[in-house]
Amino acid sequence: MSVADWIAVDWGTTHVRAWAMGPGNSVLAADSSTKGMGTLKPEEFEPALVELAASWLPKDRTIDVLACGMVGARQGWVEAEYLPVPTPPLVPARFRQADAANVHLAVSIIPGLKQSAPPDVMRGEETQIAGFLSQTEGFEGVLVMPGTHTKWVRVAEGRVLGFNSFMSGELFALFEQHSVLRHSLAADDLSSDVFQETVGAVLADPGLAVSGLFRLRAEDLLEGQDASVSRAKLSAYLIGSEIAAARSFWQDERCALIGSPALTDLYSRALETCGCAHETHSADTLTLQGLCAAKALLEEDKR
Amino acid sequence: MSVADWIAVDWGTTHVRAWAMGPGNSVLAADSSTKGMGTLKPEEFEPALVELAASWLPKDRTIDVLACGMVGARQGWVEAEYLPVPTPPLVPARFRQADAANVHLAVSIIPGLKQSAPPDVMRGEETQIAGFLSQTEGFEGVLVMPGTHTKWVRVAEGRVLGFNSFMSGELFALFEQHSVLRHSLAADDLSSDVFQETVGAVLADPGLAVSGLFRLRAEDLLEGQDASVSRAKLSAYLIGSEIAAARSFWQDERCALIGSPALTDLYSRALETCGCAHETHSADTLTLQGLCAAKALLEEDKR
Repeated sequence: MSVADWIAVDWGTTHVRAWAMGPGNSVLAADSSTKGMGTLKPEEFEPALVELAASWLPKDRTIDVLACGMVGARQGWVEAEYLPVPTPPLVPARFRQADAANVHLAVSIIPGLKQSAPPDVMRGEETQIAGFLSQTEGFEGVLVMPGTHTKWVRVAEGRVLGFNSFMSGELFALFEQHSVLRHSLAADDLSSDVFQETVGAVLADPGLAVSGLFRLRAEDLLEGQDASVSRAKLSAYLIGSEIAAARSFWQDERCALIGSPALTDLYSRALETCGCAHETHSADTLTLQGLCAAKALLEEDKR
Repeated sequence: MSVADWIAVDWGTTHVRAWAMGPGNSVLAADSSTKGMGTLKPEEFEPALVELAASWLPKDRTIDVLACGMVGARQGWVEAEYLPVPTPPLVPARFRQADAANVHLAVSIIPGLKQSAPPDVMRGEETQIAGFLSQTEGFEGVLVMPGTHTKWVRVAEGRVLGFNSFMSGELFALFEQHSVLRHSLAADDLSSDVFQETVGAVLADPGLAVSGLFRLRAEDLLEGQDASVSRAKLSAYLIGSEIAAARSFWQDERCALIGSPALTDLYSRALETCGCAHETHSADTLTLQGLCAAKALLEEDKR
């Protein structure tokens, strides 16, 4: 295993992924573990990182580690205080240095963004946004970033202007794991046709997403409705009412969808239903590109 | 303790309450336990009932036991199949007899109601509706029955015409117990002023209930928002969007609110906000009155 030039880290609540980076932002190696922020005390972050990256570390010089995500939360390695919007997504002067016992590790944690009116926060997505902007110069429009807490983000002139987070992803998980609907949702997939049709119905009448929820239970009890249909409807209720509530973001705007393949597929179908043209990007790819952008800014800053 | 003429039972998922009934529907004694349907196998219902009612049972004659609620679910003592609407709330020919080892126990379980288009079910509320109708003859309008799964019920000429269940109560519990908002909701009470103001805002713009959810987390993180304010807002988001979605039920209709004091207080404030005049009744009182109505119908049927 060759020694890295620098190390990129995406450190979320439940997982951590690290890349050994070589010349020209080439990836020499990659690894991941389930030692997410949620499982670690502050003093446990450095050992968790070294466990992943031991073979990539040089013995005789300092190596930069650029990390984004919940690692910078108050309960993380060290708190990287939110940058207020409007702001460029990455401001190297505000990267937070984390103490490490190994003097050769120079760890920089990328801060999240905050908005004061109305209050909102993000942590991790700012790096994807920077990755996106590094690939799509001059973009002006809205980024739709589905996840546990989906973000709708206004961007112009290389800056984040404002954003709104939605809980649809977490809500789906709550219904699936803890609600009276959980038995009715036990399927691996969902019916795409039912999803798209129901999104259309919700956009025409957002109240359906509220009045139709318990119906999923009754449809199962009385008609033995297939779980893949129930999943499609619940997903459409949540995503459809999110898109209806976010109308001021997407209407007459250029939109780009950033996320995992499964989620961007759903959101893409839903955005099509309301006639919102959009491009789609992989969040994983953009995260690494954002960490590369962060590293480049750090270098500029050092000069 | 005097022996009862008959026994009334309200048997829910988590609790069971029983009353020893005397002449003229007088209550001679009452008791309750946490042996709800959710904790019992079919053969455990009779012992759980006898545990509560042992001292009320005559030794030398049969005694009627009238029971409503989840005791009649598929997972209950014995399944009392749903009656399809439109229907009077109580149809004694459809009461389901439950087998008992004690030959002196004549147990009748009241069936719930079902609706086929759109699919919906209730179990327990039909007895409260019967109690309400026994006190308010000729009522024509809508019953609003807040609970874990709030019911909006159209009633005319002594019959249930149709209904819609909403999950607001269960959703509040999911947010409070399992969501990222749980720390922000840790308060015993909620701010009434904030509740009423936020219901008004949601009625004016139902999308707020969707776009404002994650904001509760951000308001806590960034501004240290008081938990009683967060609770009030979440409650208003859920109840406000329910009332907005149920507009076809309450608009231009006579409305009666039936529930626990805490819930009817909230719904009453919310209904006031949208100018919906209504009366309020205690669900506990109406449940017992409904069981008395069931007993009277059973007697008529026997003649």
